Formats: sequence, structure tokens, C-alpha cells
Amino acid sequence: MKLGILGGGQLARMLALAAYPLGIHTECFDSNPKACASEVTNLRVAEFTDEAALSEFLAEVDCVTFETENIPLSCAEFILKTKPLYPSTKALEVTQDRLYEKYFLKSLDLPTPEFLSVKTEAELIQAVSNLGLPAVLKTRRFGYDGKGQYMIRTPDDISKSWVHLQTQPLILEEFISFKTELSLITARNKNGETCFYPLVQNYHMKGILRSSEAPFNHAELVLEAQKYAIKILDALQYVGVLTIEFFYDGKNLIINEVAPRVHNSGHWTIEGAYTSQFENHLRAIYNLPLGSTEAIGYSYLLNCISEMLPINACLQVPGTHFHMYGKEPQPNRKLGHITLVDTNAERYQNSKKILSGMIST
Amino acid sequence: MKLGILGGGQLARMLALAAYPLGIHTECFDSNPKACASEVTNLRVAEFTDEAALSEFLAEVDCVTFETENIPLSCAEFILKTKPLYPSTKALEVTQDRLYEKYFLKSLDLPTPEFLSVKTEAELIQAVSNLGLPAVLKTRRFGYDGKGQYMIRTPDDISKSWVHLQTQPLILEEFISFKTELSLITARNKNGETCFYPLVQNYHMKGILRSSEAPFNHAELVLEAQKYAIKILDALQYVGVLTIEFFYDGKNLIINEVAPRVHNSGHWTIEGAYTSQFENHLRAIYNLPLGSTEAIGYSYLLNCISEMLPINACLQVPGTHFHMYGKEPQPNRKLGHITLVDTNAERYQNSKKILSGMIST
Repeated sequence: MKLGILGGGQLARMLALAAYPLGIHTECFDSNPKACASEVTNLRVAEFTDEAALSEFLAEVDCVTFETENIPLSCAEFILKTKPLYPSTKALEVTQDRLYEKYFLKSLDLPTPEFLSVKTEAELIQAVSNLGLPAVLKTRRFGYDGKGQYMIRTPDDISKSWVHLQTQPLILEEFISFKTELSLITARNKNGETCFYPLVQNYHMKGILRSSEAPFNHAELVLEAQKYAIKILDALQYVGVLTIEFFYDGKNLIINEVAPRVHNSGHWTIEGAYTSQFENHLRAIYNLPLGSTEAIGYSYLLNCISEMLPINACLQVPGTHFHMYGKEPQPNRKLGHITLVDTNAERYQNSKKILSGMIST
Repeated sequence: MKLGILGGGQLARMLALAAYPLGIHTECFDSNPKACASEVTNLRVAEFTDEAALSEFLAEVDCVTFETENIPLSCAEFILKTKPLYPSTKALEVTQDRLYEKYFLKSLDLPTPEFLSVKTEAELIQAVSNLGLPAVLKTRRFGYDGKGQYMIRTPDDISKSWVHLQTQPLILEEFISFKTELSLITARNKNGETCFYPLVQNYHMKGILRSSEAPFNHAELVLEAQKYAIKILDALQYVGVLTIEFFYDGKNLIINEVAPRVHNSGHWTIEGAYTSQFENHLRAIYNLPLGSTEAIGYSYLLNCISEMLPINACLQVPGTHFHMYGKEPQPNRKLGHITLVDTNAERYQNSKKILSGMIST
């Protein structure tokens, strides 16, 4: 078995590492010759639009997946002429464009912030007057880690946001005053077998995921989140891991976005769940029975952003594991993560405090 | 950080996979160009006696470890001229020769079967008359998976065993009528920090480890085993993972052998313990704090010998994980293993029954 992975970043890297024990070889496809998955598996360096390179890649693999939703649909369609692609083109199409994603969620009657498409400054002014302030102007595509977003708090911000983002197709979204952000990681295999990880609580800093905690125990919310997930998975006839990010305003869950892939907020599952999200993604696309998604204990995931934390000090904290991605340090770049797993609540809280004290806020 | 690993089999493979998240790169050194670690890391193909190849290898790495005790001491000494080697040459010397190992254990006043060195058939006859029957004639070196052993039950077996094994230096060992076989996996880092995994119960078939179960809960035996381990670790100023195999006769622990490395009976720790034996070996040799060795639940390890079990049927059993080594099938060759982890005793027993029913006995 050989799996092609579009993209060669840390998600591809952790997929490749999870694949070896299952007897699955991988090959990544990325335009960046330094893509960090290349340390652990083969990397083919080319653009997603390079059909000659794609053809050579497809000759090597028996099916294809991706670590990013920013795959040109033409690339996905080219792949599908010769090899299966999981998750599907439809999943890509819906999740790579915030506007389509919103239409999709609305069509399933799922709660998501109100929104309006924005193509001109006049449309932006009209949209602000319709949705009210504050509101968030976002690029429809390629947003990640808080990039491609502009918060409009006052009428003065309108033209500033337009100047900032106008070169791309935009969407204005109602601002949700949330209490916390949660995510649900799910997997579905080709047989339709579906599983759900516990809800994860996420903490962002400057738009970048800083840390996550699981499980977020709230029986009603868990059921609500799973109900929404089932609608999405069914509508897309989804195969693989799918992640849903929620705003939680203290009463209801509102879907922020959907990622058709393994997710940063699920990295704790490597040590903190009986089966990691990476292994379950692989099991799903090879139509193997899915593994238990139960949490082993309390898990805390801390991203190393811009710089790694010192390994010795981290591992001194009981229950911690260290994950380096092998990337060159750059400001605001995710270079690795630390996972803390403990079954003892008091020791867990204490360890979490020590770890979170290590980061500059 | 780059670690050289002497040997490129499945132990090296699993070490290499555990090394990536820690930011440790690996390079294996093996005479077999098909050594299975080559699927997951670099492999240098040469004999351990090839000093030119060793020099090139040493230029690439910052320290060296091994996955087998069958390393020529001259190779270890050559390495030590330029780079650190963990565990030490002394650990290699003592464990690669059954006779030296026995002398070493005796010198520490540790219980081990009575033994006599055998160089001629006359010495064998004398040794049998001293130790009584049954007794086991073994090669002093290179024995594994039951190879290099001959059980002498009757006087007629004496000359047969001699014909079978005479080309190598031999040792005759008292036969221990054991109730079960246990192993203790330990780790010690350069600071002297030491940890112990739970005792593991091992089941052999035709001399090859067929399955293991952990934890083997018996408070007194655990303490006894750890007491013996501390003596060995201290005497060798040991750095890395060390495994001790015991016979248990229902009353006492008797040391069968000592392996200066990660061990087949510890493969369950990948999913079944908070920190795997592979990660702790790496932490030990890089002098990092050791990780928790606690068992997450009940673990059952089933070796896939001669053939792999079908992945789909295995993963259908709750709590199972699949590990392929990427080796060509051959009779009596270990090709992979299945690990079952469960916290529910009843479900665990049921799953274990299903899994063990899959193997031909």
C-alpha cells in the first residue's frame, strides 16, 4: 500500500509516521523542497498544477489524500481520473471557500454566523449595515492562523479592512461573542463506520492555536456537536478525518469552520487517545475498522510557535511528550508541540501550569 | 541530534520512528541491504568489522546505540575512539556471551541457573554428570529465538547435542522447571535516573516469543525483580533500556538472560504504556528525563511469525493496533506484531481470546 499525500507539512509528517506500522508507505507532494515531511518520507517537489509531476506521483501511489484544503479543484479532478482521492472533491470544494462552506452549512440547516459575500467596497458598506458591528471581513480562501481576517469594530474600520483585503474575494461574517472555542474531530471510513473524539477546548493567541485541552466534558454539547457532524459527514459521503470548529457562546454551538483533514487541535490524540487522529485517518481511507477515540486521561496540547520549548525542561514535567516538526524557526510558525497526558486531575493541573508558564504570552 | 544505530531490524525501525518526534535523526548500520529499518530511516550497508564504513558512519552521528548485542567488541572499541556508545562496551561484553553473563550475575550474587563451560565432548559428559538431567546445552554466543540450544533429557541426547552444536563455544545450563517466563524492562539515563516497566509475562512457542501480557501484577515479585535490576544497572553504570528475562518457578525469580536493549516483550509499551520503551531508550541515551512507564490498561502483545495476521480482522477486535515491520515472509521470522490495549478486563479477555484464536498453534 502506498498513499500519496498532497502537502508535506507537519500534518503529512505525522500521517507518514502513523502509516509505517500499518504497512502503508507514503509519498508527499509539495512545492516546498524543505517541506518538513521530507525528513520522514519521500517528497516530490512540484506545484499542484504540474500535471506531468502529478502523473508521475499517481503512478507511484494507490490512493491520495491531502493535509490541506487549499488544493486546486483541477488538481483533485486530475487525480480522480486515475486514482481514488479521500476525502472527496466535494469536501475540498465546500471547505476551501468560506462562502461555499457557509452555503453548505445553511443548506443542512446547521448554525453558523450570518454572512454576506463582498466583491466591492459598496457591497462591504451594505453588508456592514445589514449584519451590524462588530463584524469580521475574511478572505474566502487561503486563510489560516488568523491570516486573511480583519475585525471591523467601528465604521472607520470599514475602509481600512477594504484596503487590507480587497485583492481577494471576500466574505463578511457576523461577529460571535463566544465564551470559548471547541472542536470536534471525527472519522468515517468507506463502509460508513463513524467515530468521534471527545470535544476539545481551544485557546488562540493572535489568531493562532496556542493550546488545546481534552476532553471538554459537557454531555449535551457533545451530543449536539455529534449531531451536526453526522449531517456533514453524510452529506459529503465523507471518508477520512473531518474536524469541525465551533464557537460556544454559553448556550449554543455555532459552526465556525470545517476542515477536511487531521487538525492541530487533535495532536494530543497521539498519546492522549487510544487511537490517534492520524491512525484513524489512515484506517478510514483504507476502509479498515476505526480505532477507539476514547481519551486516556486529561490531555493538554501546547503549540510551540516561533520557537521550540526546551526539551529537557518540558520532559521534566510528568506526563509530557515532545514533538518537533523539523522546521526552520520563523516568527509565528508552528515548530512543534508538547502533549501532556495524565489520569490524575491534580497532577495534571499542576503540570499544565508549569508548561503554560514556559511560554511567553 | 543524529543517532547511529548498529543493526537495522525491527527494533532499529521502531527506535527510528520514536526518534523523529524528539527531533532525533537516525542512521542504521547493517550488513543486510534489505534490513527493514531502511524503510523509515537511512541505512548504511556494511559489516561491523568494516572500519572504513564505520568511520564514515561515525562522521555522520553524534552518538551510537545498538539493537543487537551481537556486535564485535572490536567494533564497539573502534566507535568509542570518536563517539559515545550507549549502552557501554561492558554491557555488550557481558550480555553477548552466556558464559560471561553467568559469571557476571554470579559476581552480583544474583540467582541464575547453574552452569558449566563446555569445550570438548568429555567436558560435556562431565558437566552433565555434575548438573544432572535434564540440562540445556547452549552456544555461548549468537543464540536467539531458540536457536543454538539443545535440550538434553536422556544420556542418549548428550552425543546428539554435541554433534549439533560442537562447532561453537558452549555452556551447559541446569534446566529450570519454570511455571512461567517473565521479563522486566528498565531504563536508566546518564544522570542515573532509573525506571521500570511493569513485569511482563511471556509465552514462547518453539523457542520464539509468541505473546506477552502486561502488567503481571505480583507486588513481591515486582520488588524482587527491580532489586535484581538495580544491581545490574549499577554494576554496568548502564545507560539505555535493559531487559531481564526471568524464569519463575512459583517461588523465586531466576534470571535467564539479560538483553542490553529494547526487547520484543516490550513492544506493547508503544500503545500500552504512557511512554514506549523506544522513547525511553532515546531519552536515556540523550540524558533526558525518563517518561512514565505505567501501563494504561491490560496489554496483550501477539507476534506475527512466518506470516502476518489479516489487518482487517485484527483491527475489528476492539483495542487492537497493527505493526508491520516490512520484512519478507520466511518461516519462523517475526514479521510484525499486534497489540491489544483495554482498560475493561472482561472486554480485554474476550478480545485476547479472539486474537489468539487467529494464530495457528
